[in-house]
Amino acid sequence: MIRYKEYADELAQRIQAGHLKPGDRLPSIRAVKRQRGVSASTVFSAYYLLETQGYVEARNRSGYYVSAKMPLPGLAERPTPVAQAHALPLDFSTLACQMLAQAGQRNLVPMGSAFPSPELFPFDQLAMSMGRALRRMDPWQTVEDLSPGNPALRRQIAMRYGTLGMDLAPAELVVTSGAMEALNLALEVTTQPGDLVAIESPAFYGALQALERRGLRAVEVQTHPRTGVELASLRRVLDTHAVKACWFMPTFQNPMGCTMPDEAKAALVGLLTTRQIPLIEDDVYGELYHGPRHPPPAKAWDREGWVLHCGSFSKSLAPGYRIGWVAAGRFTARLARHKMMSSLATALPSQLAILDFLQKRSFERHLRALRHALARQQAAAIRAIGQYFPSATKVTQPQGGYFVWVELPADIDALAVHQQAGQQGIGTAPGHLFSADHRYSHHLRINHGYPGDLRSEASFKVLGEIVHRNRARSGT
Amino acid sequence: MIRYKEYADELAQRIQAGHLKPGDRLPSIRAVKRQRGVSASTVFSAYYLLETQGYVEARNRSGYYVSAKMPLPGLAERPTPVAQAHALPLDFSTLACQMLAQAGQRNLVPMGSAFPSPELFPFDQLAMSMGRALRRMDPWQTVEDLSPGNPALRRQIAMRYGTLGMDLAPAELVVTSGAMEALNLALEVTTQPGDLVAIESPAFYGALQALERRGLRAVEVQTHPRTGVELASLRRVLDTHAVKACWFMPTFQNPMGCTMPDEAKAALVGLLTTRQIPLIEDDVYGELYHGPRHPPPAKAWDREGWVLHCGSFSKSLAPGYRIGWVAAGRFTARLARHKMMSSLATALPSQLAILDFLQKRSFERHLRALRHALARQQAAAIRAIGQYFPSATKVTQPQGGYFVWVELPADIDALAVHQQAGQQGIGTAPGHLFSADHRYSHHLRINHGYPGDLRSEASFKVLGEIVHRNRARSGT
Repeated sequence: MIRYKEYADELAQRIQAGHLKPGDRLPSIRAVKRQRGVSASTVFSAYYLLETQGYVEARNRSGYYVSAKMPLPGLAERPTPVAQAHALPLDFSTLACQMLAQAGQRNLVPMGSAFPSPELFPFDQLAMSMGRALRRMDPWQTVEDLSPGNPALRRQIAMRYGTLGMDLAPAELVVTSGAMEALNLALEVTTQPGDLVAIESPAFYGALQALERRGLRAVEVQTHPRTGVELASLRRVLDTHAVKACWFMPTFQNPMGCTMPDEAKAALVGLLTTRQIPLIEDDVYGELYHGPRHPPPAKAWDREGWVLHCGSFSKSLAPGYRIGWVAAGRFTARLARHKMMSSLATALPSQLAILDFLQKRSFERHLRALRHALARQQAAAIRAIGQYFPSATKVTQPQGGYFVWVELPADIDALAVHQQAGQQGIGTAPGHLFSADHRYSHHLRINHGYPGDLRSEASFKVLGEIVHRNRARSGT
Repeated sequence: MIRYKEYADELAQRIQAGHLKPGDRLPSIRAVKRQRGVSASTVFSAYYLLETQGYVEARNRSGYYVSAKMPLPGLAERPTPVAQAHALPLDFSTLACQMLAQAGQRNLVPMGSAFPSPELFPFDQLAMSMGRALRRMDPWQTVEDLSPGNPALRRQIAMRYGTLGMDLAPAELVVTSGAMEALNLALEVTTQPGDLVAIESPAFYGALQALERRGLRAVEVQTHPRTGVELASLRRVLDTHAVKACWFMPTFQNPMGCTMPDEAKAALVGLLTTRQIPLIEDDVYGELYHGPRHPPPAKAWDREGWVLHCGSFSKSLAPGYRIGWVAAGRFTARLARHKMMSSLATALPSQLAILDFLQKRSFERHLRALRHALARQQAAAIRAIGQYFPSATKVTQPQGGYFVWVELPADIDALAVHQQAGQQGIGTAPGHLFSADHRYSHHLRINHGYPGDLRSEASFKVLGEIVHRNRARSGT
């Protein structure tokens, strides 16, 4: 039976070859179902994927049409950087803190922001859930629901993993003040200051900060812009370095958006289990998949408890409520104790409001709208980059999340672009942030998670002009 | 002019001497005012103090009467322990975590609990404040109010210090997930693993855990059960050890309840400022004073920013909301950055609900009722200990908070008492918890902060019997 992805590829090729032209209507779902003998959901998934990729557009009640603005063919993945596996001294965090401070500046076009638009979240419904939860709250819960957290909320979180086919015991879960606390606690129970931790290249700057804060050293592992951590590179690193833990984002990695294929995740967990090295899995974007399928986390293959899997509602449901969690495997008891010692408990009102929301409202309905908004916006961002940036620019096309990773021509200094864009009211995240040795000097992470922002298209134009100007300046 | 305290002492002496007898009515406030030429508030303060000390009882609408159950004269402070100033290896926290877990067992009489009764707090009013705050919340606050926290809440906190005559800038405040996070962050920005930190003896076990967690070493400073840290002892410790920070509770110390006199606080800050040693001031009980005066924190004398003053609403207004703060002096910028790196932000709903409560409701009215309940209960606890415990027992009589520190006869093992009491459904905090070398082996910290608990009187009787039995067993 034909799979949705193959059918989508087939149509994409026909569009690229000009056999289907802008404005052409795609066959109705019913027609394809009949002609190809596939299910309606397969056809729908294929059309949905093409829409997120920018090839087609949905028009209300009248079906799917080939888009007038097609994605540019040159915008494929950039070649894998040759990451060197050596220990890096870390001296970081000023630039990263400036970036986070930018998030609070409402007049800045938030392409550098680490967060999706706050307008994408159901705060009114959350407020109603909070109201009901607090009316029912038993004051004694303030002492009974200390770490590891409210038992009913932990059951709800475990149940969501159940829908992915994962059998996660609520007893393995510790509720935390967002994923950032979860990740820091995971680092704390698996390492000692001075230890070596393997990270991706490029890596989330929060990971670099966390390592710096704990006095750890980092070793970078080669990371493919589409398929994530390269296991051959990781194996070499583990053979030559006394790595005490790995901190990876196997799904919709920050900043590149890459996702390790299922088999690679399984192999990663197998490799680390054999060597008894803990994997700290940062999975804060997993719910934000653009296609029809939720990629399972690496934790799904964890049989012996070496994966400390960290998640959060901050990017999927309730920013600012600060509710995250960790399923810490064999480290659970120790981690719960460290949580208690470091911050005693997680805010009870936030826990209870989210619990009520999960029990009484449709998390799925909200998520579908959120994913769709992010996917459409990604397509628009990629088109705009193709239109306004130099032709040698490369951009990733992640299957989820709200970042794309842009590789500018090599002669461009992203920090200069960052500063000039800032002067024109546009925030950007320069590639320097994502490696301890600042090697990603001509890269930008672009946040496209602000679908309501009308300045978006114009800002891409301005940003493109700035990039062009920097190119001219450098004289090539 | 006569001061309220002198007048209270005068009356206490007359009661102890039998000149005023149980059931006697004290003169009316108006009468004393006229006879002695003092203000009504002086008389009221004196009567209030006598009430908290257990000498008199207020009867509705008819004034104050000498109590039938007077405090026993033998229950004064115990002698200062000879604390030795040497570095202690720390190996701790299992017992402490058991203790915290006990707090969640509702069937256990909570004399070992670290928390006051959740029934003492205005959760209904807080829920209403939360409702109003969330209806008005701007979604953009979720990114704008990242660390150091909501600006209006920081202004409100600073204003409360203003009522103490302290000029604290909102810019010096960082909102944290409870005081525990504040204290841990304070430790993080002032020390490196392996450093030596001066603590009280006995000390809050949370401090011992925090030091252990960060790989620090502790040196204990002699601490008086009524007047707190002894400056001569501290000076000796500083002369002979490379102390990198002090972690003290100068007001209503946990576990003893002692409070350093104002002059001693001023001298402490002066001493540490001269030596450029940071003082981490744990002031979570300051609002819970029993008498008429809020003892100013050591921070009030901080001119050069060496005091990192940590407070919280968890014990005074909103348990479970997890809102604390730190005024970190010269360490503020660094601490705000560490907060951002470790947990990004503090739960916004909790911040906004407390802000609304402070702006719209009477925090003072709630606090007056809370303080009064705790003071009355302290007097009852001290009477019960006097009645049921061996006569050689000594107990502190703190001017605030909800703990008393009980020194049992030296031949009694508090851990055995703790275990036997637990089997009879009574929680206790054995003295072992409060020193790294478990030296307080015949001491108990008793929580009397559960005024609604009808089991209280009976439990003191059972506890007294257990103590007597252990005495008999040890053959003395």
